[in-house]
Amino acid sequence: MNIQAIKYDSNGLVPAIVQDEATGTVLMLAYMNAESLRKTLEAGVTWFYSRSRRTLWQKGETSGHVQTVKEMYYDCDADTLLIKVNQTGAACHEGTFSCFSRRLDSASGQAEKLVDPEKVYKEP
Amino acid sequence: MNIQAIKYDSNGLVPAIVQDEATGTVLMLAYMNAESLRKTLEAGVTWFYSRSRRTLWQKGETSGHVQTVKEMYYDCDADTLLIKVNQTGAACHEGTFSCFSRRLDSASGQAEKLVDPEKVYKEP
Repeated sequence: MNIQAIKYDSNGLVPAIVQDEATGTVLMLAYMNAESLRKTLEAGVTWFYSRSRRTLWQKGETSGHVQTVKEMYYDCDADTLLIKVNQTGAACHEGTFSCFSRRLDSASGQAEKLVDPEKVYKEP
Repeated sequence: MNIQAIKYDSNGLVPAIVQDEATGTVLMLAYMNAESLRKTLEAGVTWFYSRSRRTLWQKGETSGHVQTVKEMYYDCDADTLLIKVNQTGAACHEGTFSCFSRRLDSASGQAEKLVDPEKVYKEP
């Protein structure tokens, strides 16, 4: 375990890329502080720090769409995490499997929704 | 093209996850400002902004390990990019295909080096 190696930014955060292990799909980017990283390692499911709400949150706590951690990596600068997970349901609050459903380099539309977000999430 | 949709942070930057299209391997995370994003879209190869050197840099300019852009996505918050590329050689300056070669959750060692970084990079 090399948790001491991780370098946090001036806000005490490190970006975490979440990738679905089975499909290789990049699901989302979220931020962790030291406490959420510790909770993730202890619980085996992802915990993040919300910069807007200034609180820890467990992914899937409301929706049931938890991310079970399979493998965790950090990069050569030790300032970014890569977390390979088993994604239950959809990673995105918009109902798509991945949060990256919008093409930047074309006029094409969005990815198909796996679930109806209004049915899964109580809060907007 | 939805380049106007992208939301930059207080430093004018947006994190960009780079993924090898063929293998699904997450290669690196780097940062773009508006100019490097424009150059990436124009040139079809990745350009980033170095936070430490405070300058634009083209990935592979020194090493030859350029990243040819295949597809670009942005996430539901429009504050993170996902760039699928064709990676020439190794993405990491340490000689590994991916910068994410260190396991956080085990005592196992690093990934195999594809190239000798001392032979590829002139500068440290």
